Amino acid sequence: MDKLLYGVAYYREYLPEERLDEDISLMKAAGINVVRIAESTWSTFERHDGEFDFSSVLTVLDRMHASQIAVIIGTPTYAIPGWLAKKHPSVMATTPQGVNKYGHRQKMDITSPIYLRYAERIIRELLRATAQHPAVMGFQIDNETKYYDTCGAHVQRDFVRHLQQRFAGDLDRLNAEFGLDYWSNRIDAWEDFPPLESTINASLGAAFQQYQRQLVEQFLAWQAELVSEYRRPEQFITHNFDFEWRTWSYGLRGEVDHFAASAALDITGVDIYHPSQHQLTGAEIAFAGDIARTTKDNNYLVLETQAQAFKNWTPYPGQLRLQAFSHIASGAAMIGYWHWHSLHNAYETYWKGLLSHDLQPNPIYHEAQQIGQALAQLSPQLAGLKKQNQVALLVSNACLTAIDWHPYQGHQFGRHKEHQYNDLFRSYYDALYRLNIEVDILTVDDPRISRYQLLIAPLMYAVSDDVLQRLNRFVADGGHVLYSFKSGFANQHLKVRHERQPGVIREAIGASYQLFVEPHDVTLQSDVLDLPPQATQVEHWMELLETENPNAEIWARYQHPYWGKYAAIVHNRFGRGSATYIGCCISEGALESVLCTLRQRLGLADDAEGHRFPVVVKRATNRAGNTVLFYLNFSSQPQQVTLSCARGRELLRQRHWQRGETLTLADWDVAIVELEDAQ
Amino acid sequence: MDKLLYGVAYYREYLPEERLDEDISLMKAAGINVVRIAESTWSTFERHDGEFDFSSVLTVLDRMHASQIAVIIGTPTYAIPGWLAKKHPSVMATTPQGVNKYGHRQKMDITSPIYLRYAERIIRELLRATAQHPAVMGFQIDNETKYYDTCGAHVQRDFVRHLQQRFAGDLDRLNAEFGLDYWSNRIDAWEDFPPLESTINASLGAAFQQYQRQLVEQFLAWQAELVSEYRRPEQFITHNFDFEWRTWSYGLRGEVDHFAASAALDITGVDIYHPSQHQLTGAEIAFAGDIARTTKDNNYLVLETQAQAFKNWTPYPGQLRLQAFSHIASGAAMIGYWHWHSLHNAYETYWKGLLSHDLQPNPIYHEAQQIGQALAQLSPQLAGLKKQNQVALLVSNACLTAIDWHPYQGHQFGRHKEHQYNDLFRSYYDALYRLNIEVDILTVDDPRISRYQLLIAPLMYAVSDDVLQRLNRFVADGGHVLYSFKSGFANQHLKVRHERQPGVIREAIGASYQLFVEPHDVTLQSDVLDLPPQATQVEHWMELLETENPNAEIWARYQHPYWGKYAAIVHNRFGRGSATYIGCCISEGALESVLCTLRQRLGLADDAEGHRFPVVVKRATNRAGNTVLFYLNFSSQPQQVTLSCARGRELLRQRHWQRGETLTLADWDVAIVELEDAQ
Amino acid sequence: MDKLLYGVAYYREYLPEERLDEDISLMKAAGINVVRIAESTWSTFERHDGEFDFSSVLTVLDRMHASQIAVIIGTPTYAIPGWLAKKHPSVMATTPQGVNKYGHRQKMDITSPIYLRYAERIIRELLRATAQHPAVMGFQIDNETKYYDTCGAHVQRDFVRHLQQRFAGDLDRLNAEFGLDYWSNRIDAWEDFPPLESTINASLGAAFQQYQRQLVEQFLAWQAELVSEYRRPEQFITHNFDFEWRTWSYGLRGEVDHFAASAALDITGVDIYHPSQHQLTGAEIAFAGDIARTTKDNNYLVLETQAQAFKNWTPYPGQLRLQAFSHIASGAAMIGYWHWHSLHNAYETYWKGLLSHDLQPNPIYHEAQQIGQALAQLSPQLAGLKKQNQVALLVSNACLTAIDWHPYQGHQFGRHKEHQYNDLFRSYYDALYRLNIEVDILTVDDPRISRYQLLIAPLMYAVSDDVLQRLNRFVADGGHVLYSFKSGFANQHLKVRHERQPGVIREAIGASYQLFVEPHDVTLQSDVLDLPPQATQVEHWMELLETENPNAEIWARYQHPYWGKYAAIVHNRFGRGSATYIGCCISEGALESVLCTLRQRLGLADDAEGHRFPVVVKRATNRAGNTVLFYLNFSSQPQQVTLSCARGRELLRQRHWQRGETLTLADWDVAIVELEDAQ
Repeated sequence: MDKLLYGVAYYREYLPEERLDEDISLMKAAGINVVRIAESTWSTFERHDGEFDFSSVLTVLDRMHASQIAVIIGTPTYAIPGWLAKKHPSVMATTPQGVNKYGHRQKMDITSPIYLRYAERIIRELLRATAQHPAVMGFQIDNETKYYDTCGAHVQRDFVRHLQQRFAGDLDRLNAEFGLDYWSNRIDAWEDFPPLESTINASLGAAFQQYQRQLVEQFLAWQAELVSEYRRPEQFITHNFDFEWRTWSYGLRGEVDHFAASAALDITGVDIYHPSQHQLTGAEIAFAGDIARTTKDNNYLVLETQAQAFKNWTPYPGQLRLQAFSHIASGAAMIGYWHWHSLHNAYETYWKGLLSHDLQPNPIYHEAQQIGQALAQLSPQLAGLKKQNQVALLVSNACLTAIDWHPYQGHQFGRHKEHQYNDLFRSYYDALYRLNIEVDILTVDDPRISRYQLLIAPLMYAVSDDVLQRLNRFVADGGHVLYSFKSGFANQHLKVRHERQPGVIREAIGASYQLFVEPHDVTLQSDVLDLPPQATQVEHWMELLETENPNAEIWARYQHPYWGKYAAIVHNRFGRGSATYIGCCISEGALESVLCTLRQRLGLADDAEGHRFPVVVKRATNRAGNTVLFYLNFSSQPQQVTLSCARGRELLRQRHWQRGETLTLADWDVAIVELEDAQ
Repeated sequence: MDKLLYGVAYYREYLPEERLDEDISLMKAAGINVVRIAESTWSTFERHDGEFDFSSVLTVLDRMHASQIAVIIGTPTYAIPGWLAKKHPSVMATTPQGVNKYGHRQKMDITSPIYLRYAERIIRELLRATAQHPAVMGFQIDNETKYYDTCGAHVQRDFVRHLQQRFAGDLDRLNAEFGLDYWSNRIDAWEDFPPLESTINASLGAAFQQYQRQLVEQFLAWQAELVSEYRRPEQFITHNFDFEWRTWSYGLRGEVDHFAASAALDITGVDIYHPSQHQLTGAEIAFAGDIARTTKDNNYLVLETQAQAFKNWTPYPGQLRLQAFSHIASGAAMIGYWHWHSLHNAYETYWKGLLSHDLQPNPIYHEAQQIGQALAQLSPQLAGLKKQNQVALLVSNACLTAIDWHPYQGHQFGRHKEHQYNDLFRSYYDALYRLNIEVDILTVDDPRISRYQLLIAPLMYAVSDDVLQRLNRFVADGGHVLYSFKSGFANQHLKVRHERQPGVIREAIGASYQLFVEPHDVTLQSDVLDLPPQATQVEHWMELLETENPNAEIWARYQHPYWGKYAAIVHNRFGRGSATYIGCCISEGALESVLCTLRQRLGLADDAEGHRFPVVVKRATNRAGNTVLFYLNFSSQPQQVTLSCARGRELLRQRHWQRGETLTLADWDVAIVELEDAQ
Repeated sequence: MDKLLYGVAYYREYLPEERLDEDISLMKAAGINVVRIAESTWSTFERHDGEFDFSSVLTVLDRMHASQIAVIIGTPTYAIPGWLAKKHPSVMATTPQGVNKYGHRQKMDITSPIYLRYAERIIRELLRATAQHPAVMGFQIDNETKYYDTCGAHVQRDFVRHLQQRFAGDLDRLNAEFGLDYWSNRIDAWEDFPPLESTINASLGAAFQQYQRQLVEQFLAWQAELVSEYRRPEQFITHNFDFEWRTWSYGLRGEVDHFAASAALDITGVDIYHPSQHQLTGAEIAFAGDIARTTKDNNYLVLETQAQAFKNWTPYPGQLRLQAFSHIASGAAMIGYWHWHSLHNAYETYWKGLLSHDLQPNPIYHEAQQIGQALAQLSPQLAGLKKQNQVALLVSNACLTAIDWHPYQGHQFGRHKEHQYNDLFRSYYDALYRLNIEVDILTVDDPRISRYQLLIAPLMYAVSDDVLQRLNRFVADGGHVLYSFKSGFANQHLKVRHERQPGVIREAIGASYQLFVEPHDVTLQSDVLDLPPQATQVEHWMELLETENPNAEIWARYQHPYWGKYAAIVHNRFGRGSATYIGCCISEGALESVLCTLRQRLGLADDAEGHRFPVVVKRATNRAGNTVLFYLNFSSQPQQVTLSCARGRELLRQRHWQRGETLTLADWDVAIVELEDAQ
């Protein structure tokens, strides 16, 4: 795409009155150049089984095309018509809570053959009607797909077959690897599999969830293949992934592997919702972008993000613009608001759009106009930005699931619904973010790790020997890895290693432990780290580390009457590289100290020249090969920023910036500098 | 009724020993002149299907009659016998949680034809046996009737028929009005209706609840008609309504419309339970009375209120008496304790009666004796009190339901169980109560609004254009309305208006808004209101108001770095009247400031002559046409009260009160003055 | 048993590699002389229906025997194989939540005839294979047996038969005693019984739970009988009882009567889990031991207690040893760790054993070595310790159930899941424990009460007239009883007494009350007790006591504007003894004052010579007839202890201790003195 896309989701079907022309003219005035349509309204297109009417869609396509607004067509399969559920009750998913009732979206069974048959038909009909339309620039398949807890009899049957293949029919190996002798849970006949939804065996439960995640990949690949039959070569296929939802986008999902599922797509799309007003930090924009961008090593589409949304998200003046450039600076090729107009009925009445319920321009819309103008003007400099980061953060859906079963906070039994994995992920991510250390986010088994100087690996709990050995080799070959506690503890089947912990990586970190305890009134003490006094608290989990290698340096110890002799954080030279291990749950402040020390030791460049949050600095390279620096002020206070080592052109203010010159960012303001000489 | 009724619920069936004569003699000694019986013990009357035995009831009637104690007979239909549930499982209601199990009361389906057949039979048998007995003064039909979440297949079928009629078969209009295109929820065949209990469409869900509320009205009307066949002309039909239950009576009910359901009755009965001891304020006594009295523009029966009840409700000395006169002062014609004796078994063992479990006189009983004596003595002055209030508070069950779907606090999705509507209702009511502004409580569409000078209209969220236009006309014609935030937002189908907000009433208030936000660290700033410094906090919800009319006066603005330019409270002269709009959720202290300013601006009389809570002043007119003033001290401290502008006779102390004289009320004390000259 | 047993649970089946010999050699090095095996692994022994393989067990027996480690064989019936649940779904219990799903242990129905048939077969097969093996010292039948909420149709049918017998077919008496007329709940035909799981009648619900508890007794008696057919005379039968689980062992269980169920055993076994690290007090070790020891007036087996267990339980240095001698001092004949090695899979991966997951010696193991050595060495002095306490604490499962229905804290309706009974039990127990007043724990109807000088009787809420009269006689005959509030209130059917409260015991305590209230800002005022100022708060419940007898002494009054005239604590001489009644919920500090005053008044010896928690003193008599004193320091600070009135030999330090000599206990240290002259 050679220009930045600025878009909205548009639901003509929901509008209380005919106003397509008025909407298009307001969109044009705001610089909107793309709309996403059709993904939510199957029942409108097929009011009765087999009777199709896409006339409304076609009208939208015609009018948008006439106004040079491109259209992304969504396949409408994530919300099924009521008549389908009535006619074929089996399309509703069976979950651990029973059979879903119709009403909410995403309650059907994505593995139901009947659902798939009807879904295929509506997709084919919709594409037949629209794909060749010149307005259509691409397709979104389904929406925020997960497996929706489907665990009915046929899913369990197929899972058992899957396991049978995975273990080559060897039940003894499965029993041994999963530890099923425990509490009389052995399985000695494939037909004797117990219900998976009530298993207390973490290995079995995690294997089932891994299988369920694959169902999502299969479903999306199936839709992509269908769409491929109709699309023109220049039309893309995307999907709108979402992240863990804690009333905003938060971290990884247990129910979908963003990396594996992206394989079927041409370009990755995501939705990114984040706290706003006094709580806006931009961290969610950054981390979601860092995942999306890495999935396909490419720019990505922000298919949904908030315009006004809720009462607590209506942005302060300036915030909508700040958000927009934060997305661009992370590599977004499109910013799409969910949604154009606020809804007058139903579930999301208070998830407001760019227009309020009165469908008239308002202060937020006016700010969008400014953004639209700027994006149009700066597309030559800002479209197709590339990023080259020295640091990668490693993630793993399998580890997320494993930590759900074996959390590090609080009660230690059974499967937890809240992903503590994401809590730790976020504390590591946020520390990086506040220090302006930009990262790519990769899965732990990604071969691309060799590109990086430093890997950050929190909670690498359930990882195979192979993958950990590869990380050891990465270190031996001159790389650097920072691990958190609980890393290396179990293998890919969640079987705890029975060597001294942390197992395979012990060699690289030059330390080990036998005991771990819950900290009570424990703080860190360090001669190496520059720990802020209020940041020394240890919480939730601590391993009693002992160094084993003369190269191992203790970066912090515990302050405690009984555990004071143990190490908390160790750093070890191993081969040509080094590994650092944080054996406990520490504050973001302490994490920042560790990261600063690491950056210094490893001689990593500080691309942000000392700027720290609330000034966020992002760096990219544009198509002209020039470095572009974004200075983003995430605060209500003005901030000074200085370009110490280079000079350039500030693109929003259209003026030159001298080396060493200081510029004042107003509250929630942004500056964009295209450097004029190489650094 | 020419004398005040002082009563108890009496359950001879529950007593551990025969003591009818002893009970009657203790009742007589306490001035008890009415008992309510029979509403809870169907299984005692009909131990086997079709075998009836009312001998115990008849004995009670005979003995009570012999002692001049009147009896209210309750139809025993709210708690069914176990054998009925066993024989006909379909009498148990199907709810969103499944089919109810037998055990608790009020778990049957009030629309089950089998239940209705059995209910009719026991009612007819009971009335045949008792109605002509001279002791019987009236009948209570059923008890605290609601629809008990009934949503089985036949209820849903009948609801669909109801909708079909309401929309004259026009599904397109229904889809449009309810916004069913959203998330593929369209309904294009009447037989395709989805399950109502799992709908995510607020309009559909609210319409269903409105229909369910009507089931209660139908059920009570059906019972009233049955009873009418047997009763003598002088015998009344009543029902015992309850209010929202938050471990005490709190506000409106979602499951019954007190106003509509009262139509079938001769006199409205209610139960009123309230905090006690250091938490006794009398506010629940007042608001429940204000509803009950207005339902039929008449006195009402307090069929149930607490004597001792729970450990936290055992009254301090004096409180039982204070409570009694608070009821009378609000227009109660009867005070009935639930119940005579504490229960020795089962669910409500700790809901104690006037007698403790030892069935002997105790300090509470002794206080009841004083009350009984006073009521008997003062009946000539205090029976049949009438009230004429200048102010009415408007309520709406439909708005309560709508706010359940679209709450103003916290999480904004789905249907909430706690009625936030009642939270706001209570904050407005309590501010009025503390200022001694007495009100009637009406539904928003009540034609009687024209009687009043000022209408208080909190959360009028889902109201039709017609009704709102009538309120505009009320203002234009010289009336005054005070609205809260979120008023006027949606129509009667919960469809948000797509004009500028607050829609129809915008004209009357001279202001409008497009944006609303969640307040964070926001306070009110006002040049008009006398705001106590600790009362300026804005919480949960704020609309960014802009005035549009030169007559519109800004009574308060927001203090906030970004929202400071918007108005929080506006007051507008419109036609011959005025409208005031509070665009945010404010403290009771700030509400009091608004009300005081309004009272002053509108020139409303302060009937309480400056007395404020904890001195509560209530005013009524007795049968002799004299004004009666009640001075109620809701505190543990003595309070001084002064009659500035009149003189009269204090009825409890039996002494004259000079104009300007000051009287000291002891802790939890009461004075009652019958004025001797007109004010 | 002539030597102290030091054991571990051992699961060869769970181990990730063959290491039996290595394990045994590590056990030997740690002084382990007994292992418990086989109770959890039915599916390993019977991989297919009817195919048995005990070879692994037999190998363990052979090798253990070769190393002189004895073995306790557990019947593996508490966790069933998956194939059994698949083949016979009816073996899974039906509970109020529906039919259990397979996965977790203890989800089967212990009354299912099919389950019982399969359970019998595996027991017989296992015992046939192992019972005669010389390594086997005894048998544990099942594990932590409860009734697992079983309430299916057949259980309810049998319960109705049971009631029919209990009431000799007299439904009228049952209706009267249970108060079933209430809310139309009468039962007038045995075949009309309502579902028990949804009853709101506390009497009926409690009777059902009492019946369910008996199912446990029947089940264990049935297993004991089966095992008896195979065992040699010297082999014991035990069971592993657990206590209420609040993430540690807390109090009585609602689901099993430890006293009644112990009848089938030769020796009682228990598991005792307790807070550790800075929260270790030893109170759980003491109270669980006091119950276990009293069940059969004998030493008992601690079949399970923690070694490392969870992150929050890994002991500080010294704590494992302190815990071990605390058990011994309470009369334990065995300390068994759950478990030998940490698990590498499944539910309890983080419930660590003596060995960590690396299966190598670690600091905890090394401390166990010290303990093992000391126990072996001191067995002559410490095996078979007997205790003779002057004080007994009375308990009642029926009262626990009754308080679940009628709690004294918070909301007062329906059945509560948390046992408030245990909260009060623990506050009384802990006050005793902190004062070093050692107790036996008996059921309230135990004939052994006559052995004691003082009975402590908290919450004796639902007790028959007979039993209370026996307590009155105990007092009249010179004994002393201390009651809490709510005692004597209801009879064994939970029918509240309709005499003045507290009914039968009113006579003994010389006081009564009619009213009870919830305290708000109420404190105790006393001229008798030495109340610490911060310990005077009254909470949750207070009865307004009035003395009725000149002998009755008011030990404390309420401080409150209205309730100040009532007594809070009364003490009454009655016959040759005395009764004390605490009419409210008071702090542990106030309870200590009451107990100190009582000890002084009754002239009870202070066996601890003034030592108080954190120094815990326990006294016993050994086989040589010598008194043994244990001084246990439950703190991180050193403590001084003095032997004022005797001299002896300190067994751990192997040195003489002079009368009056002071010894310093290090943090978490212990001293054991065998006295050399009688006291």
